[in-house]
Amino acid sequence: MMNTPAPRDATALAGDLAAGRTSAVALARAALDRIAATNGDWKIFITVAAESALAEAAASDARRAIGKALGPLDGIPIAIKDNIDVAGMPTTVGIAAYRDRLPARDAAVVARLRAAGAVILGKLNLHEGALGATTDNPAYGRCENPRVPGSTPGGSSGGSGAAVAGDLVTIALGTDTMGSVRIPAAYCGTWGLKPTKGLVGTSGLAYLSWTLDTIGPLANSAADLAIAIAIMAGVDSDDPRSVDAPPNWNPAPVATDLAGLVLGRPSVVDAVACEPEVRAAYDALLARAEQAGAIIRDVAIKGWDTGKARRAGLLISEAEAGSLIGHDLDTLGGGFSDGFRGFLNYGRKASGERIAAAYHALDRLGLAARQALDGVDALILPTAPQRAFAHGSPAPADQADFTALANIAGLPAVAFPLPGDKPNSAQLVGTAFAEGRLLGIAQALSETRDR
Amino acid sequence: MMNTPAPRDATALAGDLAAGRTSAVALARAALDRIAATNGDWKIFITVAAESALAEAAASDARRAIGKALGPLDGIPIAIKDNIDVAGMPTTVGIAAYRDRLPARDAAVVARLRAAGAVILGKLNLHEGALGATTDNPAYGRCENPRVPGSTPGGSSGGSGAAVAGDLVTIALGTDTMGSVRIPAAYCGTWGLKPTKGLVGTSGLAYLSWTLDTIGPLANSAADLAIAIAIMAGVDSDDPRSVDAPPNWNPAPVATDLAGLVLGRPSVVDAVACEPEVRAAYDALLARAEQAGAIIRDVAIKGWDTGKARRAGLLISEAEAGSLIGHDLDTLGGGFSDGFRGFLNYGRKASGERIAAAYHALDRLGLAARQALDGVDALILPTAPQRAFAHGSPAPADQADFTALANIAGLPAVAFPLPGDKPNSAQLVGTAFAEGRLLGIAQALSETRDR
Repeated sequence: MMNTPAPRDATALAGDLAAGRTSAVALARAALDRIAATNGDWKIFITVAAESALAEAAASDARRAIGKALGPLDGIPIAIKDNIDVAGMPTTVGIAAYRDRLPARDAAVVARLRAAGAVILGKLNLHEGALGATTDNPAYGRCENPRVPGSTPGGSSGGSGAAVAGDLVTIALGTDTMGSVRIPAAYCGTWGLKPTKGLVGTSGLAYLSWTLDTIGPLANSAADLAIAIAIMAGVDSDDPRSVDAPPNWNPAPVATDLAGLVLGRPSVVDAVACEPEVRAAYDALLARAEQAGAIIRDVAIKGWDTGKARRAGLLISEAEAGSLIGHDLDTLGGGFSDGFRGFLNYGRKASGERIAAAYHALDRLGLAARQALDGVDALILPTAPQRAFAHGSPAPADQADFTALANIAGLPAVAFPLPGDKPNSAQLVGTAFAEGRLLGIAQALSETRDR
Repeated sequence: MMNTPAPRDATALAGDLAAGRTSAVALARAALDRIAATNGDWKIFITVAAESALAEAAASDARRAIGKALGPLDGIPIAIKDNIDVAGMPTTVGIAAYRDRLPARDAAVVARLRAAGAVILGKLNLHEGALGATTDNPAYGRCENPRVPGSTPGGSSGGSGAAVAGDLVTIALGTDTMGSVRIPAAYCGTWGLKPTKGLVGTSGLAYLSWTLDTIGPLANSAADLAIAIAIMAGVDSDDPRSVDAPPNWNPAPVATDLAGLVLGRPSVVDAVACEPEVRAAYDALLARAEQAGAIIRDVAIKGWDTGKARRAGLLISEAEAGSLIGHDLDTLGGGFSDGFRGFLNYGRKASGERIAAAYHALDRLGLAARQALDGVDALILPTAPQRAFAHGSPAPADQADFTALANIAGLPAVAFPLPGDKPNSAQLVGTAFAEGRLLGIAQALSETRDR
């Protein structure tokens, strides 16, 4: 089945299914074959659920045969980061100790996707505990970057980026605490969306930080991200931070003319030392945007300090995750790496004064970031300061310095690929619930060409 | 001037001003005289700003004389709890160390009231640091309860309840972290409103807990609370938790027929041992409501535990306040009571794991409380388990066990007086932004009589 071309776009697949050019079972079989052929090397999947996936695909085909197809995701194979519960599959969170931990039911977001007919192929590798961005997982393997052999796919949703980049699925779910959807999107050359805080319910997610975590899709196009997020969004009665989207919310990419559009270039861009190729690609993108009539405006984010933001976000993540699994850390012995255990114990033992100050810092930084959007259509930044780097080389401390802003501010952000041989990426951050607007701007920017 | 009758209702005062039956200067003079005559005994005001108040009153009268009166609060004397900044007056927070701390400008909510023409008489006594509910303040005096001589007015906004109950002002601002507006309203026999989280901006408030604090008015009627909150509400660009009210938000009490209304009686009511007179008055209120056609429905709040809620709210308050003024605690020596210092140092030194777990508990409890409103028009509870008690007797640990729910859930709550010789009170909790609805129900309930 490896000779079945792997389609890269769920929108196209949905068209093929609707026209009868393929079937959900054929799509699932092709994907499962490709996973089977690659996973030994690539370590992208932790769990492959061939049997249930084929059954779901057959059910989809049966629905379609009687004219009862459920919508654009019906019959489309997808995969889920392994910190999000899927009934019948372990939720390892990338942690050895949780290898056999079976959830009682689907996470809210998985239930929504399942109800829309998506076929769930399995669970994706991630950085241990979602706390880190290389996905060189000590228990579940060194996840390969299919577009940059030998390099990290980023993380913590490394398997999600790799699964899309490796043409194993067209849509994968990731989670994003400080950048964990967008960094792998950048390193793997895919699109990634971190939605507005509260838009996608998080019950059934093994939180790293309930304050910062969001669940978002990775895919190969703005259209596919929109299809996914339209189904993922919705009130989750078991998530204290779940919110109703405005009545007119619509994530479909808004057709955008760049002429007259105002893009804010935050001062943080100059405060982080980027790999030269990242900065060059970003500057070239801004130049193309200006050629197309966009206005680039320098914007300051009052009080923003990348080190302060990073430390506060990390400390809160360590304390929150530590409070949730501290008992396991103390009792399950060797099921956690020393590094991971050390991070969480640091948060657990930090003083209440420091923890409260970190929450306060996040509040103030978030407010400043939201205010930086006054008078601009979106902020535009590189996604990560560097491109994918070789597995085994030390992880830079600044991987999330451009992405954490959207988490801290609770705002939506889209990472999208830039031209070049090796994956490179830019990022747009917009106002709350502006997913459709952001996707439209990103689409327009990604279509600009040098004149 | 003490022979000028002290009007108890700002709505009536506004009518008198509009009709030319009195002037803002006359009202301010009468109030200042009454304060001067009582404050030595009552210790209700920490700062009295006679000169600026009279100037503001004269300006109000001048506006009115040329037909430019600003609205229902123009020329009405009000007073502000002394943890909210008013330019030109110290913000002591009820703490000795801060006796001379002058703020640079008005708090956002004070600026709104000032812009509406309210005349600010001064700053009101409170429990030290707003952390406690007796207002027996070691630095600024034992605040008297004008309706129950020798007893506490409650707290932490004890001065606010006492100022209204003592007919010094018709509207006073308080702050409410776990019940600090509603407890003094209950003990003093006034009305008190804790608004929806984020509705009233909190910049310029000396936070006890930025997570739980809200600013709300105390007054002698639902109508007066509505007049005050209508002006107090509004986006505050320097408050990270400020939110826009829905476009149709209106706090004016909604005329309410109790017939068919569904009032939820939360299980917490039976979980707290009340003073018999409190429980009797509450039960009698429910009986009257039923006689008027209301349906009383028992509702469970999933996982609610008064001890857990109290401990989590207290720990977060101690840690948050501790993180804000920890440096002062360490360096300003004797300017804090040992008790207050001990509470904050406890929060400062608690482990990150405990602090994060407390935040998580608040999140889960808040969700459960919001869900308890499904299918009911409001929750109805006693306001406090006890009535005002003698100054000097030990403060019960359960003072906030009925009020903390609304803070933890971010919901609006109204405390209103019940019949009886000694002040007694019930409380309604409603859905977000339902201030007008709650005030209307409270008004209707307060008009029920035994048949």
